[in-house]
Amino acid sequence: MFQSVVIGIIILSALTIGAKTYELPPLAEQLLMLMDNGITLFFLIEILFRFAACPSKKRFLMDGWNLFDTLVVVGSLVPLDNSDAVLLGRLLRVFRVLRLVSVVPELRSLINSLLKAIPRMGYIALLMFIIFYIYAAMGSLFFANVDEELWGDVAISMLTLFRVATFEDWTDVMYATMEHHPLSWIYYLTFIFLTAFVFLNMMIGAILEVMSEEQEAEEAKQAHDERDEIARQLKRVQEQLHLLSQQISEQSDRR
Amino acid sequence: MFQSVVIGIIILSALTIGAKTYELPPLAEQLLMLMDNGITLFFLIEILFRFAACPSKKRFLMDGWNLFDTLVVVGSLVPLDNSDAVLLGRLLRVFRVLRLVSVVPELRSLINSLLKAIPRMGYIALLMFIIFYIYAAMGSLFFANVDEELWGDVAISMLTLFRVATFEDWTDVMYATMEHHPLSWIYYLTFIFLTAFVFLNMMIGAILEVMSEEQEAEEAKQAHDERDEIARQLKRVQEQLHLLSQQISEQSDRR
Amino acid sequence: MFQSVVIGIIILSALTIGAKTYELPPLAEQLLMLMDNGITLFFLIEILFRFAACPSKKRFLMDGWNLFDTLVVVGSLVPLDNSDAVLLGRLLRVFRVLRLVSVVPELRSLINSLLKAIPRMGYIALLMFIIFYIYAAMGSLFFANVDEELWGDVAISMLTLFRVATFEDWTDVMYATMEHHPLSWIYYLTFIFLTAFVFLNMMIGAILEVMSEEQEAEEAKQAHDERDEIARQLKRVQEQLHLLSQQISEQSDRR
Amino acid sequence: MFQSVVIGIIILSALTIGAKTYELPPLAEQLLMLMDNGITLFFLIEILFRFAACPSKKRFLMDGWNLFDTLVVVGSLVPLDNSDAVLLGRLLRVFRVLRLVSVVPELRSLINSLLKAIPRMGYIALLMFIIFYIYAAMGSLFFANVDEELWGDVAISMLTLFRVATFEDWTDVMYATMEHHPLSWIYYLTFIFLTAFVFLNMMIGAILEVMSEEQEAEEAKQAHDERDEIARQLKRVQEQLHLLSQQISEQSDRR
Repeated sequence: MFQSVVIGIIILSALTIGAKTYELPPLAEQLLMLMDNGITLFFLIEILFRFAACPSKKRFLMDGWNLFDTLVVVGSLVPLDNSDAVLLGRLLRVFRVLRLVSVVPELRSLINSLLKAIPRMGYIALLMFIIFYIYAAMGSLFFANVDEELWGDVAISMLTLFRVATFEDWTDVMYATMEHHPLSWIYYLTFIFLTAFVFLNMMIGAILEVMSEEQEAEEAKQAHDERDEIARQLKRVQEQLHLLSQQISEQSDRR
Repeated sequence: MFQSVVIGIIILSALTIGAKTYELPPLAEQLLMLMDNGITLFFLIEILFRFAACPSKKRFLMDGWNLFDTLVVVGSLVPLDNSDAVLLGRLLRVFRVLRLVSVVPELRSLINSLLKAIPRMGYIALLMFIIFYIYAAMGSLFFANVDEELWGDVAISMLTLFRVATFEDWTDVMYATMEHHPLSWIYYLTFIFLTAFVFLNMMIGAILEVMSEEQEAEEAKQAHDERDEIARQLKRVQEQLHLLSQQISEQSDRR
Repeated sequence: MFQSVVIGIIILSALTIGAKTYELPPLAEQLLMLMDNGITLFFLIEILFRFAACPSKKRFLMDGWNLFDTLVVVGSLVPLDNSDAVLLGRLLRVFRVLRLVSVVPELRSLINSLLKAIPRMGYIALLMFIIFYIYAAMGSLFFANVDEELWGDVAISMLTLFRVATFEDWTDVMYATMEHHPLSWIYYLTFIFLTAFVFLNMMIGAILEVMSEEQEAEEAKQAHDERDEIARQLKRVQEQLHLLSQQISEQSDRR
Repeated sequence: MFQSVVIGIIILSALTIGAKTYELPPLAEQLLMLMDNGITLFFLIEILFRFAACPSKKRFLMDGWNLFDTLVVVGSLVPLDNSDAVLLGRLLRVFRVLRLVSVVPELRSLINSLLKAIPRMGYIALLMFIIFYIYAAMGSLFFANVDEELWGDVAISMLTLFRVATFEDWTDVMYATMEHHPLSWIYYLTFIFLTAFVFLNMMIGAILEVMSEEQEAEEAKQAHDERDEIARQLKRVQEQLHLLSQQISEQSDRR
């Protein structure tokens, strides 16, 4: 019940943030201001309430989600009056929408599983970065005199290469450099093939890794069940045989 | 047989709708009008016929596909004469093509399996929406003064972000804001990485979920078959042992 | 050996076709002409030779690849002299490169496996076509007055929608119609979501189908092996039991 | 420990290369020059050291990674003084970043696994090339007179087709040719469908191949374990039966 109220307030907060981006009559603006303060207060009380209700204060602060909530709430306490801090204050209020993630358990577990997928992609990301860096260095070496805005230095070149990797008007970039360096299409094609190839293999690898993990766990469990069933029957056969052996021994003794 | 006639009429209806988008001589237009009315009448009769043929009237109305058919047919009864309703009438006639889905059983089962895939994506879609909303709020906060048409309010910003997510001329949008906010490339790159990452994981998750479901069912069945075969043989061994035990007992009794 | 010669000639033929697209001195042009005729003759002789070598003439003509080869070779016999037929003649010569597919066995089996994948996608393609048709009809209904070139009739609208589906400058199309119909973004977004959703599910379905087929075959075979091994051991146990029973019977009889 | 130093030097080298793309004061330039020479010297000493430390000189040169390192280091010895060789010298220095791949073992194994994926895609790549070549020949045959820059000869046409395959402003290309050849949309649509279809099937094939390999190995191992367990139990049953049979024989003998 309490959780639904919190979710409702967060959605109200999100709507307030959205509403502020529209031009509104002064009255509505003041109403939004009031509501905003109310929401800030509500969140503050809620977090204090939760902190008080937690038996172990230390564990409360160790939990990533609580820390995240506290940060967001404290952040939105920055006053809006000062004209300089207005933008910052509004920005911090935007992050209150993120509290939805920490309140809805399903989203929480979703984020947790997404976070788990990050390290798996670490070395691939490093390899991708090396490819980008080398091509960017080559690009700014050869094409800096063609278009300063696209190939001026390594950082700008990497941005341009990211653009090429998303196929965004990449032929415009290529045709411009091909006028001075007619063979520069080799540069673009090898870059596209390399990044696409590494990306595809990364995706396939990710699918396979998760899949084999799941499958292994499942199969191990299932195989166990199966084996158990047959093993139990075999045990019974062995017991029957043992009884039989005793029967025969008894017969032999009796005689 | 009757079904093929219905499919034929629906295709004819689709062609009629398509033909109307071309400029035609008045005679052809009148012919199309006549045909259109004929098709409307045919569909009306067909649905009444099916309603009459159904033993349980209540179940007829409870079935989603029948309701869908009825709605489409009743919708196309809106008269075309009134000049105001012409557009609406023609729009409702367009939806008659959808009846193809409800008539062909393979398409019906395809749609059913697609509908089943929706809830699975629910929370991911919610997470995606939250990402879009936060970035849109930030975007209209920082970039509203750069380009009112792209970042005017939250709704417009979300449309612009969807455009960025499809890589559609996203560098034009970025270069425009980078002139005023040189660091705004961080905004776009984090957004693209976040959405792509969540999207990819969603896809992988969907593949794995469906796969593991199918596999589980299949393996369970197969394991069952296997176990059954071996269990039957073990039963026979146990029976043999029981007989053997009886044989020995009889021997013992006889003596 | 002979096959390598044929592959060499086909590659030569491909190079000839490519060379003709460049501007060449008259001497080279005449040389190419000569070579072209030589290649045509070689292919003709080769197919006649293969036809003669085939024991069953009927089976030769029934085989799709032979028919394909014959068609390509006969097609390139169209004379190049007549100025009207030059384009057709050259086009038919282009298809000679396709003979590479019918000569290299690995490419042949690749094409065969690709062809097998087509029917599986049949109903999905039909569903996709229905979605495109309905949206195209709606598009030309509402937007024909906005841009005749993009939404003039159903056929042009379908081409425009294919463009939207590939994300190719789709926002230009959308912004143009949004000026007259401010809510038309709903049309584009639902269309993109629908096609992307159906496409993704199609891909996932295709992966799963091929996978489960392969897996089923493999598992069935493997399970069979396993069962066989255990069943053989159980048989031996049953035989042992049978012998035991006989032993006891004999004992009983002897007494 | 030594490895971390090498990695640190490589990263420093990468930063040096990046820094050179910015405009710097003369002092910084001279400092970079000095550092560059120092890094070159360090790499030279390191490779000589490693060569000296390797027991078998022959195996050192046979290993691909060592050869790669040697080539990169020797390449960066080209002097920067000569104004003609400046570009080449700087280019060769860029490749020093690639040494990161040969030094970090995880990246090395990643590259090895990527290299293993290449032959698997060989025939698909050949098929793709044939499709591109045929369409390029057709394109330059029909559209050379429309736009010399896009369809001038086979090579340019293939570049244009690659652009179409990445959906990069492909409608601009299409609309230009549709003005002269109204039916040329068939050319583009069949090309897009063909390449997308082959590409998708290639991806699915790659996923399935890797997966089935992994699965096979795993299942074979698991099935072996399972069979072993049950076989061991069955062995025990057989032994029990053998003992029983001996018991009965003894009884029979005793009497």
